[in-house]
Amino acid sequence: MIDIATRVYNHTWKIDPIVRSLIDTDFYKLLMCQSVFRNKPDTQVTFQLINRSHNVRLAELIDEGELREQLDHVRSLSLTRGESTWMRGNTFYGKRQMFSPEFMEWFENLRLPPYHLERQDGQFVLTFEGAWPEVMLWEIPALAVIMELRSRAVLKDMGRFELQVLYARAMTRVWEKGERLKRIPGLRLADFGTRRRHGYLWQDWCVQAMIEALGDKFVGTSNCLIAKKRDLEAIGTNAHELPMVYAALADSDEELARAPYKVLEEWQEEHDGNLLVILPDTYGTKAFLDRAPDWLAEWTGIRIDSGDPVENTEAAIRWWTAHGQDPREKLIVFSDGLDVAEIESLHARFAGRVKATYGWGTLLTNDFAGLVDGDALAPFSLVCKAVEADGRPTVKLSDNPEKAMGPKDQVERYKRVFGVGEQARRAVRV
Amino acid sequence: MIDIATRVYNHTWKIDPIVRSLIDTDFYKLLMCQSVFRNKPDTQVTFQLINRSHNVRLAELIDEGELREQLDHVRSLSLTRGESTWMRGNTFYGKRQMFSPEFMEWFENLRLPPYHLERQDGQFVLTFEGAWPEVMLWEIPALAVIMELRSRAVLKDMGRFELQVLYARAMTRVWEKGERLKRIPGLRLADFGTRRRHGYLWQDWCVQAMIEALGDKFVGTSNCLIAKKRDLEAIGTNAHELPMVYAALADSDEELARAPYKVLEEWQEEHDGNLLVILPDTYGTKAFLDRAPDWLAEWTGIRIDSGDPVENTEAAIRWWTAHGQDPREKLIVFSDGLDVAEIESLHARFAGRVKATYGWGTLLTNDFAGLVDGDALAPFSLVCKAVEADGRPTVKLSDNPEKAMGPKDQVERYKRVFGVGEQARRAVRV
Repeated sequence: MIDIATRVYNHTWKIDPIVRSLIDTDFYKLLMCQSVFRNKPDTQVTFQLINRSHNVRLAELIDEGELREQLDHVRSLSLTRGESTWMRGNTFYGKRQMFSPEFMEWFENLRLPPYHLERQDGQFVLTFEGAWPEVMLWEIPALAVIMELRSRAVLKDMGRFELQVLYARAMTRVWEKGERLKRIPGLRLADFGTRRRHGYLWQDWCVQAMIEALGDKFVGTSNCLIAKKRDLEAIGTNAHELPMVYAALADSDEELARAPYKVLEEWQEEHDGNLLVILPDTYGTKAFLDRAPDWLAEWTGIRIDSGDPVENTEAAIRWWTAHGQDPREKLIVFSDGLDVAEIESLHARFAGRVKATYGWGTLLTNDFAGLVDGDALAPFSLVCKAVEADGRPTVKLSDNPEKAMGPKDQVERYKRVFGVGEQARRAVRV
Repeated sequence: MIDIATRVYNHTWKIDPIVRSLIDTDFYKLLMCQSVFRNKPDTQVTFQLINRSHNVRLAELIDEGELREQLDHVRSLSLTRGESTWMRGNTFYGKRQMFSPEFMEWFENLRLPPYHLERQDGQFVLTFEGAWPEVMLWEIPALAVIMELRSRAVLKDMGRFELQVLYARAMTRVWEKGERLKRIPGLRLADFGTRRRHGYLWQDWCVQAMIEALGDKFVGTSNCLIAKKRDLEAIGTNAHELPMVYAALADSDEELARAPYKVLEEWQEEHDGNLLVILPDTYGTKAFLDRAPDWLAEWTGIRIDSGDPVENTEAAIRWWTAHGQDPREKLIVFSDGLDVAEIESLHARFAGRVKATYGWGTLLTNDFAGLVDGDALAPFSLVCKAVEADGRPTVKLSDNPEKAMGPKDQVERYKRVFGVGEQARRAVRV
């Protein structure tokens, strides 16, 4: 029987919305948002879409009108009662009332601020300006919208069965990855693939497939909506955005040098346990650890998001050992462009030496490489970053110069202030 | 929205029926049934299930109760008004009113006769006895029921996503076959896969995928229900059953020797054009052609269903040429265990020399080889044949001794009467 009501209801949609919920975002965005809401509510920031893969000419592929419709739809969203209940009533990382009543009340009344969209040289110039706690929430939906519009653009002329076979191939690929991963003893892995996903439904499929394939080895997802829907742990802590904005706001080189630690000092006031994960690479992991205050060594773990993951983990182990900590009790969260082979080799090297966990992103939720003509669905590297705070440019150095950003003179200044020397270049695939 | 009415309606099913329509059968069964209804309505026959793959122990795999439920369900079916309309109103092979009003009236009132089911040595002994026009209609549903119950038995403990990936792999395999086939210029291919299909929905999927992949190169399906549903040509002519029963009824060696030609004489009175396709291998192709009356050479084509397809086609070409016919105007229907590689090589050899068409069966609708543990879904060779007519055993020699059937002394008699000497054995995969 055809459900006529559903069909008629569906007729009323002018678009097929990509982002349908304010919590279709990464959990760490909400944690950071609460922190910013408390500590820097009035900081004015600019976020900007940055396509590191210049060969993917997004503005030629995606219709500007469709993009505007999708972004406008995101602006129409507000937190539903059920979503609010989930955030207020849930236990995150074993803690109740992770989100304060003040934050929740603000969030319940939030609509995302306006966006600014232009086209330039085959790319979209998409920016968001305003108060930090509002603007920062655009990052994930903006990326998800662009990524899915790109998928839709590539797929729009394919036949019905051709499409089904495309997804059959992609499903088989994801499943075979799961079959390899489940053979890794003691694996702990989470989905970090929201921002670069092929599409929402596809991410949801991948997560469910991993639940079945990996069982307890699949520990959760960074996506709050999927965590809610599939009764999973929401996973995540904090990101480069915090030290980048704090650093931009610094009034002197001395203050700049202290900024990354100040972020974590404030974080520690709010959080404990598994949320105390250091992201040390914003201005170079080595220098960060060399200059870190002693209290940081007591934190639960370190996330490795750029550079050579083996070198950086060895450096973390040495640092913990030098500070009298037992690395075997410490968490390492690998999250930089992971795929199965790298997870296997990292696990073979570090299992037993640290508690290794894996945030598997783009190559879980968007590995369509080689599946369509001209490889038009190959992964590419799109980010949406804070580029300005209170009128000053932000800078990121990272452990890979390919991921660095900011005005050239400021990059030089930051390198000097943070004592960053030569860095090895690593190709950025995703 | 959940369609509650559909869910509640589905609750009322005690079983999930495999065969849901009397026209979920091969078109040639209906053509032959009409012929038998006219010429031999009172002949008493016994049909029997024969599993040529002894290693597949069906009675250990399939629950007898479930099998009875499915067979009982088939007995509950009668022709619906829409099905009757399709048969009465459709154009088959360019001809209107293929089925006579007398036949249709009889068919509209038909229910399939009882079955007899026992278990013996890990196999089912499944037989059908009664008037030929009724009993013969059991062949295809009986095979389809057993094949699908076997699939269900193998798949019943698999996880939801594991199952989805199994079908993803099978879909990819079918699609890749389609991609190879569509590169063959001038290909004409039909689905002949009803009897050994993995399942009804799967056959329907394969047919639809071939419509999209092959376009005009996909000329139809032998399955009447799918032809009706997907607006395709129903394809088929006649089968071994006719000469086998006519031969069994012969009262002397002379009459036996004439039986295969008598069948075709009667067929010719009813049909013309593309329906005039000779199936010469029942008692050996070579002897059949050597002794064939001249008028047979004017028929439209020959179906090659056993033996070496190249040798048999060359023999057919020589035979037509010797009778003053132009082989380029003649049809060869290949239908013996075809898969892509053989279709490619046959087409490379015979395109332009004859009008080659391909009836693709088991390896279209049931190629799950290697896709589950223990290869428990590998194709196997199951048939349901007339074994007796008016109390006398039937015999089939075929061009492959592996496909021969009948009591030993009768096989020897038939070989003598039809002048069949040594035959090359060919492994029967499906």
